[in-house]
Amino acid sequence: MNISIIGLGLIGGSYALSLKKRFEDLTIFGWDVNDENLKKAAELGLIDEMCASASDAISKGDWILLAIPVNAIEKNLQGLLDQLKEDQVLIDFGSTKKSICEAVKDHPKRRQFIAAHPISGTEYSGPEAAFDSLFEDKVMIVCEKDRSETEAIEQFRKQCKVLGMSTTYLTAEEHDIHLAYVSHLSHVISFGLSRTVLEKEEDEDKILDLAGSGFASTVRLAKSSPEMWTPIFLKNRTAVLESLDSYIAKISEFRELLDKKDETGITSYLKESRAIRKILD
Amino acid sequence: MNISIIGLGLIGGSYALSLKKRFEDLTIFGWDVNDENLKKAAELGLIDEMCASASDAISKGDWILLAIPVNAIEKNLQGLLDQLKEDQVLIDFGSTKKSICEAVKDHPKRRQFIAAHPISGTEYSGPEAAFDSLFEDKVMIVCEKDRSETEAIEQFRKQCKVLGMSTTYLTAEEHDIHLAYVSHLSHVISFGLSRTVLEKEEDEDKILDLAGSGFASTVRLAKSSPEMWTPIFLKNRTAVLESLDSYIAKISEFRELLDKKDETGITSYLKESRAIRKILD
Repeated sequence: MNISIIGLGLIGGSYALSLKKRFEDLTIFGWDVNDENLKKAAELGLIDEMCASASDAISKGDWILLAIPVNAIEKNLQGLLDQLKEDQVLIDFGSTKKSICEAVKDHPKRRQFIAAHPISGTEYSGPEAAFDSLFEDKVMIVCEKDRSETEAIEQFRKQCKVLGMSTTYLTAEEHDIHLAYVSHLSHVISFGLSRTVLEKEEDEDKILDLAGSGFASTVRLAKSSPEMWTPIFLKNRTAVLESLDSYIAKISEFRELLDKKDETGITSYLKESRAIRKILD
Repeated sequence: MNISIIGLGLIGGSYALSLKKRFEDLTIFGWDVNDENLKKAAELGLIDEMCASASDAISKGDWILLAIPVNAIEKNLQGLLDQLKEDQVLIDFGSTKKSICEAVKDHPKRRQFIAAHPISGTEYSGPEAAFDSLFEDKVMIVCEKDRSETEAIEQFRKQCKVLGMSTTYLTAEEHDIHLAYVSHLSHVISFGLSRTVLEKEEDEDKILDLAGSGFASTVRLAKSSPEMWTPIFLKNRTAVLESLDSYIAKISEFRELLDKKDETGITSYLKESRAIRKILD
């Protein structure tokens, strides 16, 4: 089987490595809009063969995986679908799904497309950041599965299972609102914390020398790629704004309790927050 | 040498284990207001001997370490200092320092007291959470060192060095404002994120099944102990409110950029935040 991966960063590169580790008789073709990334991916052995263009990659794969920023997916998806021959399958790994599904909902080859999103990642990006266990014990979300070929959906689920992933099916709307709360909001929070502390660092020298593991954990996502995250926030703007407004209200509620020195209120607030232990531990 | 530790949770228990691992000829006495914690600490081998009371612990140690919530430190510190015999040293490990230093600034035995704060911890609490490498490669902050015996300060620095810690000297005011930004604010943020997502989970079932490692990292501190954190927020109220207001302004700035679909503005915002990479990586 031939698999073409378009976009050879953390996600595309790690998916390539994961496939190579667990499947035999697989040839992985790759292409990246950034020529350096493409060469680096070949050097690192993420892919078996470099393609000359996205169209070249499309022509060579039985399956084609798109692991590029969500704005680039939405912009190119119709043109890429146009090029599919019968039996080829195109799968996108974008972090938002509603506008992507909307863009191709009436495309004649819609059934050859799978709208997917692996819930995995790190704060690092690029082919050097790829590793072969990124997807182990993670969830693959597939949206609007009834609009894709049943057989392709089933084959993809089986492939994900071999990679150690369970598959969950959602509508694109459900996906986007859920991810706003459990992923996109966390990124906004980290980016905001980073700016707050960096600004204070300008006034009070060396404040960051005192940062412990708690700060490092909370601010970790602020190291994420702006090129990837600006499009995610814009494409999922409504849901991110909803989650952000809810969050600002919660933080402001704490601020008022503290301003009023409401010891009982603060303790209740923290105890309710702490219920997350039951779910995440 | 005899060391008494009052408060046998994560910090007191880990300090006990760290000392036992690296020093010979040391007897560790312990006491905890919670009788179960005291027995558990003895069972787990964190301490060598259980004391009958805080006064009993004071009487038995050459050095006495206070690892209890900051409100309990402030309330008991004068009474504990009263009981010190000549040459005994009392060290507190509280997470805020200004109100604690203020409470004993005119005490006749002030020079036998060291106001310290190890920058280390996890989201877990209690004696079971203790481990012997918690302080390795971490920072010990000592405040108002000129108000303590020079010899005691020097001995404490040497002990910390053996435990793998460097010592930094700050005023109590510097400590509290710096910690508000690089520790206390991170905790408020995590507690707030947890409440936001738990509330949404009530409406949209199973949203947390989709949470990845990014959410887990950002929300981790929400598992922290309310009994420890309510007093920290209240004792460091002014600095925490300052940092929180600055943070809410930064988050609201992002919200406005997203609301206006300001792609360039969002990308600049994320790029500036990402500068934290240079410092934390």
